[in-house]
Amino acid sequence: MSYNLLKGKKGIIFGALDNKSIAWKVAERAHEEGAIFTLTNTPSALRFGEIDQLAEKCNAVVIPADATNVEDLENLVKKSMEILGGKVDFILHSIGMSLNVRKKRVYNDLKYEYFAKTLDISALSFHKLLQTCYKLNAISEWGSVVALSYIAAQRVLYGYNDMADAKALLESIARSFGYIYGRERKIRVNTISQSPTRTTAGSGVKGVDGLMDFTERTSPLGNATAEECANFTIAMFSDLTKKVTMQNIYHDGGFSGMGMSLRAMKQYNKGLNTDKLPEIE
Amino acid sequence: MSYNLLKGKKGIIFGALDNKSIAWKVAERAHEEGAIFTLTNTPSALRFGEIDQLAEKCNAVVIPADATNVEDLENLVKKSMEILGGKVDFILHSIGMSLNVRKKRVYNDLKYEYFAKTLDISALSFHKLLQTCYKLNAISEWGSVVALSYIAAQRVLYGYNDMADAKALLESIARSFGYIYGRERKIRVNTISQSPTRTTAGSGVKGVDGLMDFTERTSPLGNATAEECANFTIAMFSDLTKKVTMQNIYHDGGFSGMGMSLRAMKQYNKGLNTDKLPEIE
Amino acid sequence: MSYNLLKGKKGIIFGALDNKSIAWKVAERAHEEGAIFTLTNTPSALRFGEIDQLAEKCNAVVIPADATNVEDLENLVKKSMEILGGKVDFILHSIGMSLNVRKKRVYNDLKYEYFAKTLDISALSFHKLLQTCYKLNAISEWGSVVALSYIAAQRVLYGYNDMADAKALLESIARSFGYIYGRERKIRVNTISQSPTRTTAGSGVKGVDGLMDFTERTSPLGNATAEECANFTIAMFSDLTKKVTMQNIYHDGGFSGMGMSLRAMKQYNKGLNTDKLPEIE
Amino acid sequence: MSYNLLKGKKGIIFGALDNKSIAWKVAERAHEEGAIFTLTNTPSALRFGEIDQLAEKCNAVVIPADATNVEDLENLVKKSMEILGGKVDFILHSIGMSLNVRKKRVYNDLKYEYFAKTLDISALSFHKLLQTCYKLNAISEWGSVVALSYIAAQRVLYGYNDMADAKALLESIARSFGYIYGRERKIRVNTISQSPTRTTAGSGVKGVDGLMDFTERTSPLGNATAEECANFTIAMFSDLTKKVTMQNIYHDGGFSGMGMSLRAMKQYNKGLNTDKLPEIE
Repeated sequence: MSYNLLKGKKGIIFGALDNKSIAWKVAERAHEEGAIFTLTNTPSALRFGEIDQLAEKCNAVVIPADATNVEDLENLVKKSMEILGGKVDFILHSIGMSLNVRKKRVYNDLKYEYFAKTLDISALSFHKLLQTCYKLNAISEWGSVVALSYIAAQRVLYGYNDMADAKALLESIARSFGYIYGRERKIRVNTISQSPTRTTAGSGVKGVDGLMDFTERTSPLGNATAEECANFTIAMFSDLTKKVTMQNIYHDGGFSGMGMSLRAMKQYNKGLNTDKLPEIE
Repeated sequence: MSYNLLKGKKGIIFGALDNKSIAWKVAERAHEEGAIFTLTNTPSALRFGEIDQLAEKCNAVVIPADATNVEDLENLVKKSMEILGGKVDFILHSIGMSLNVRKKRVYNDLKYEYFAKTLDISALSFHKLLQTCYKLNAISEWGSVVALSYIAAQRVLYGYNDMADAKALLESIARSFGYIYGRERKIRVNTISQSPTRTTAGSGVKGVDGLMDFTERTSPLGNATAEECANFTIAMFSDLTKKVTMQNIYHDGGFSGMGMSLRAMKQYNKGLNTDKLPEIE
Repeated sequence: MSYNLLKGKKGIIFGALDNKSIAWKVAERAHEEGAIFTLTNTPSALRFGEIDQLAEKCNAVVIPADATNVEDLENLVKKSMEILGGKVDFILHSIGMSLNVRKKRVYNDLKYEYFAKTLDISALSFHKLLQTCYKLNAISEWGSVVALSYIAAQRVLYGYNDMADAKALLESIARSFGYIYGRERKIRVNTISQSPTRTTAGSGVKGVDGLMDFTERTSPLGNATAEECANFTIAMFSDLTKKVTMQNIYHDGGFSGMGMSLRAMKQYNKGLNTDKLPEIE
Repeated sequence: MSYNLLKGKKGIIFGALDNKSIAWKVAERAHEEGAIFTLTNTPSALRFGEIDQLAEKCNAVVIPADATNVEDLENLVKKSMEILGGKVDFILHSIGMSLNVRKKRVYNDLKYEYFAKTLDISALSFHKLLQTCYKLNAISEWGSVVALSYIAAQRVLYGYNDMADAKALLESIARSFGYIYGRERKIRVNTISQSPTRTTAGSGVKGVDGLMDFTERTSPLGNATAEECANFTIAMFSDLTKKVTMQNIYHDGGFSGMGMSLRAMKQYNKGLNTDKLPEIE
């Protein structure tokens, strides 16, 4: 589908690794909707990923940047403006990583060097990006900035570890900077709280299959896919959502509005080995 | 602007009175985006309003209905399906009225007959509409239902009176029925929590000017207008938001994310007649 | 345990039926903490329950009242003030009933006469109580009013039906009237959102066993019992919580803060018949 | 007042500087309620404050500790257990500091070295404390840990700067670790979101007078004082609140439940220099 929703708009997209990435899907959809943009990721992600395919398809330049490094961000933003021919209209931040998770340090045995790094990569990078753009006056009036988040920022999901705290910090930064950007520049900043999504980054995590089954059965519309998230992100970048700012919007098939669904309860009750099948709706 | 976002989609729009109504703007935008729909309001609103102009402009049939009356709703939904040639894809519920407010009964001196009526008109009508459509199987798969709400459902604003409670009930009904509709029919139900908007219905309320000045200065992007709300509603009706359900989304220029803004504080401090001008940002 | 936390305080307690009722436990604890109070319930509940035992134990007078009837409430409040020798310091509202649930009408097939009754009994009764007390000036400065609620007001739990909407309305009324009472009388109004609790009223509901197992395993501290809820209610009545108002406080062993726990996930995975045991914490 | 609510309980109290500190008031009240505890603060705060007076009054030992330093925390916790004769039952974390605020770096011109320090002092210190206690098995079953927070974690208040993000992170850590502590040790972890309070630490901030006037007039019960916060904290430490965990509870006179109050609006309208006095309630 294509509506020309982003016709003439310019952007920067962080975080596309391979064709399972949400950022990848956002890039594809943004291209279909008429936008031009640059792509960025860390040098090592660029090496291991397949971003060149995406760049070719979308006619986009790839600019390496470590999002925790202000100089890299300055370079990225300046080059993007040069390449795109002016200020950008939209930015996607899709960045998160926890060494504590990777190294299997549980939440009551965190390594603080890793914790600081989790926060820097997954949350402070968003402030650095916004501050860099602010100083370079790099975003157009009525521009739209989106960062991807997860419901672990509000509710504990075992195993999500210090990434939960990073997402809470990320959402707070979106709110805090959204105030400044709204007041001074008429630019909006929001986070999208997406269903758990099977990406290459996340697929190695043990226990994720059970969780995704649970969220699938709990969400009345099922888990939201990466493609669907891309569509919603396009709506948030478009001129249809100009007055939505400082919000964290759940794009999750309804999971966040649920306490317990009939479908998940039936599955749970099987585990109980009882014949207590729920009768009420 | 037009993107053909609703091309081929059918709908029902409640609550257009005159060209200040949000529902009026939604109808205009839905028409521009390629939708066909019926319009409805109470018989008395139809008499005093200017809905025929809108109907003509949008090529829409007007069907009178008292939204608290299930038979009226059945008639409306059946006729709409006949006229539009099948199930509908979207519905807008923009209905609210409090006799306690009109008759200046303050919240600690409510008349319970009026309170029940406030709830019936402003909230239960939404359940009646959803249940009627459910029984008539009147909404297409991946259809979208939106009701307009207000932040008084979460935070007390003096003077909003029993309408605040009605909006809380409305949002709960959206959530409760959103679960059923999502699970059984793949249809989404959401509420949009809109900035205070100067409509004909609301303009008579004393004290509203001060409040709207306050929300204007508190919201980083200013109050959202009826036109902007219509644009956001279109996005919620479109296929870009298929997995958003059971949510209450603030379309308010950022007001809901604010505790106190610099602009509002400056204004407030003038009232304090002090020279305590805030220095920090 | 007894701390004399309510020494010299007077109150009214709604909703004690038998010794499984939360209100029953609150009465016992309030008595232990030095309070005097009246007990009330509907005439029919008084017939079928065992409230006389409680009244004797607590040295309390029982006054029948239908909480949806303003005259009954006036009589109750006036008599309570006579018996107790002045204004009251605390009130517990523990009232809820849905004929739709009782008659097994599912949420997409509600009878509206019942729905109105659900709201009247479970939510509007709270407004009627507060308004009656307001007009009779029946609550002392720094008094405390508590109503019992449930997380279904925020998140859908299948089967809770129109009671979810009633609880959302109840919490809104607490907030709306809390503003007036705080501003004019320095009285606080809050709701306690309690774990699902096995009471006589709730025990007949099918499917409740599975749900309570799920909430038990999801809540890090397990479900909160009626006795524990009584203790928390005493704290909310005491002078230690004078500045907490217009809040809905979760007393639920942590359930509301959870997305998914390890314990519940293990149980759920058994139902999946997989060997995907979660490895991460 | 004294109820012996903490009789026989042992604790650690962070953050008492002088008699305006909330932590100071908590210490006084904990002492009155029968607890024994150690006091702690950074070496420099101990030099400039008057903590020795408090220590004498409460019969408490003062142990210096930099709460960002795990070794210091280990020493503090071990010594506290030695002095108090066993595990502790309660801990108060009242720690926050932003060099960006102190050095007047606005939010769109933060120094990242300072930002990291703000997070480390105001939020990560709480994780370090909890993890240290966890490893040392230093908290008794049904113990209670409280950290002080502020509504800036949810809503932007201009000037609160990166402290807002730190409070959001702090509340997330309370939730995340509350899950582990609840599940494994039956210990609860909560945050109290307190009204703005005139302490020595906060009193130098420009613009705070206007803000406190606004919150005073907006909160139906007025701003909560440090003494009142101490009372509420005692309730949270007591056995009356055993099943409340992973919560952020507003102790703010109702501010968090308000959108706009009549009193604040009247003041605001004076600034508007209009005669639009609100007529509705």
